[in-house]
Order: sequence, then structure tokens, then C-alpha cells
Amino acid sequence: MKKLIWPGSTQLAPVPAVLVGTGGNNWKNNLITVAWVGIVCSNPAMLSISVRPERYSYKALTELREFSVNVPLASQAAIVDWCGVVSGRDHDKFAEQKLTALPGSRIQSPLVQECPLNLECQVKDIIKLGSHDMFIAQIVAVQVSEDFLTGSGRLDLEHDGGVLGYAHGHYFNLGKCIGHFGFSVRKKSGPIIRK
Amino acid sequence: MKKLIWPGSTQLAPVPAVLVGTGGNNWKNNLITVAWVGIVCSNPAMLSISVRPERYSYKALTELREFSVNVPLASQAAIVDWCGVVSGRDHDKFAEQKLTALPGSRIQSPLVQECPLNLECQVKDIIKLGSHDMFIAQIVAVQVSEDFLTGSGRLDLEHDGGVLGYAHGHYFNLGKCIGHFGFSVRKKSGPIIRK
Repeated sequence: MKKLIWPGSTQLAPVPAVLVGTGGNNWKNNLITVAWVGIVCSNPAMLSISVRPERYSYKALTELREFSVNVPLASQAAIVDWCGVVSGRDHDKFAEQKLTALPGSRIQSPLVQECPLNLECQVKDIIKLGSHDMFIAQIVAVQVSEDFLTGSGRLDLEHDGGVLGYAHGHYFNLGKCIGHFGFSVRKKSGPIIRK
Repeated sequence: MKKLIWPGSTQLAPVPAVLVGTGGNNWKNNLITVAWVGIVCSNPAMLSISVRPERYSYKALTELREFSVNVPLASQAAIVDWCGVVSGRDHDKFAEQKLTALPGSRIQSPLVQECPLNLECQVKDIIKLGSHDMFIAQIVAVQVSEDFLTGSGRLDLEHDGGVLGYAHGHYFNLGKCIGHFGFSVRKKSGPIIRK
């Protein structure tokens, strides 16, 4: 298959599309949509988000040095998109999207009650890279909606359309489960296909 | 909906699951599977990968200061899984998985010909975080398989099952396209649903 060579660009896919929440300490509650987010360390659990300095949330992030990462369902794609298009300078995003600000257990910034999975994050370092500054943060607590736990207490985000993915400018839900980590070497049982 | 509060953990989802290639300069060609990967800057285009120092690829990454990120199709999930389970100390991953080492245009490390999308990356910084070191790298070139371009030259990875996602220990393909960035405010035309 022939390859074309292009200049460097941000073609990684799929990436998460999450709602980052800030507020408290005289900052109004706000949300910003971030796709430049990823896990960067397992122990301690850490992630990074990258945000342009000209975004309204940037100053809150640098002053508060904390934020929530709210993992949305595919069915919440329109909310995620809207929060990425309009600015907190002109909108009360929680009120206009009828979202509930849930108190964090370890941070003052609000979590989004309606998202099934919420990560409470404390900033450890801010690195200037160019168009974006990278906020490296420890995930100090996780909140999960009880309805998304199986009987055995395992997180199962596959109902209600599953979590939201983002690939090359388009939002997707997740499709079929192909197998779990290690399936390729579990020869006796073969790949585990979730029905 | 009631929330449960858990200790901090790496629950972000979905994340990409990519093959990171290293080789050249007296290093044998090798691949490591990485899910702790994300875009960190748009201009210049940059990403980060996080790798445990005890992994076989770690020394190659620190000495070569470059790598390829190969974005697999969902149909390549078993290859991705296998490359994440076995070590390059004991295996020739390219040969055993019948993968073709494609030369980079800007790096010496091999790309995976069979993956539709390949990012050539040069390391700018390495940050120790705990269990993992984070490699911050510039994406200096992109190679794409011609078969995945539409007539108008747009990248379309949706055929052949689309790109591979990873969520809470399980591999997924992407499901339906819900809309593209900005769909929530395009009232006249409504969400763009790709058939």
C-alpha cells in the first residue's frame, strides 16, 4: 500500500473528548472541552491536559492549580461540542446545558454530576510548548456513577452508548469490544467478545 | 445518580492504543504498545508517550531520542495486544507478526507499513514522573496509506473497522459517527451523520 508523506500534524486517533471543570476560590464554575488529554503515569496516577493561554479557562487553571476531568457518554456529544465552541466569558455553561455541579472530594472545582466518570486532578507542573501549555496533574480521586458498575463492582461504561471518542474532527461512540488486554496470548479461551 | 468515590487511578477512556517503533543506529527494530499517549500541542504538533524504565524499549528511546507512533486499525488489535504482552528482549516483533519496517522520512526508527497512519517523532524532553517517564516529542512528519484517503484527499480511517480504541482494559473499534466538531451550533443543517 503506497504511503503519502505529509508535514507533522496532530493526527493521533482516537483521543478522548472530555469536559474540564474549574471553579471555587472566587472563580465561577466553568467547563472547557479538551481532546489534548492523556494518561502520563500509572503510579502515581497522572494525566496531562493541554490548553491554549488565550482560552478563558487558562487563568483559572493556572491560579487554582486543580481541575476536574469529566468523561462523557457518547450520548452527551452535543454538550461536549457546545462547551468546546462557546466561551465561559459569555456563557454559564453549567446552567445553559442543565448540568449539575457536583462537589469534589479533594478539589474545590466542580465535577459534572451527569458524566459517569469524574477525575479530580491537582496540577504538579505547567510546561509551555507553543500554541498550548501542558498541565501535568495527579489524579487524586475518582468519582463514578453507581449505575455504571456491574454487580461485581467493575466499571462498565458500555451501556448508554459508551464513552465518547474523537478522531480527526469527528465524534464517535465506541463499537464492539474486540477483546481485553492479553487476549492475543490466551490461546485456550480465545478472544473475549463481549455480547 | 449516586456517586462512589474511589482513590485516584488512570480511568480516562477511551485512549489510543498505538505501536511505538524504535530502531536504527545499532538498535534492532522493535515495537512497544503504548496507551499512555496523547497530543500535547497543536503548533508545533507534539505528543507525549509514557514508558516504564524497565521496558526493553526504554533505553532505545532515551538513546535514539526519536520513535514512530503507528496508529493501528481495529482489525489489528491482536497484533497490538501481542506487542504489549511480549518483550523485544525475546522476540523479533516485526518478523513474528509479519509486519513490514517502512523507512521514515525524518527519523531512522522504522514505521509499520501495515498501519494506516504513522507519526514520525523526535524527542524534545524526558520527564520522570514515577512508574513512567514521559517523552515529549515533536511530530515532524506523518505518513498515511493512500487507500485511506477520500477522493478529496481527506483522511478517512472508518473503513476496515476504523482505528483502535482502548477503554478500561478492553479494545474497541469505533462505532457510529455522531457529528463533527461544531455540529451542536450548526442549527440549520443539524448534526452530520456519516452513513
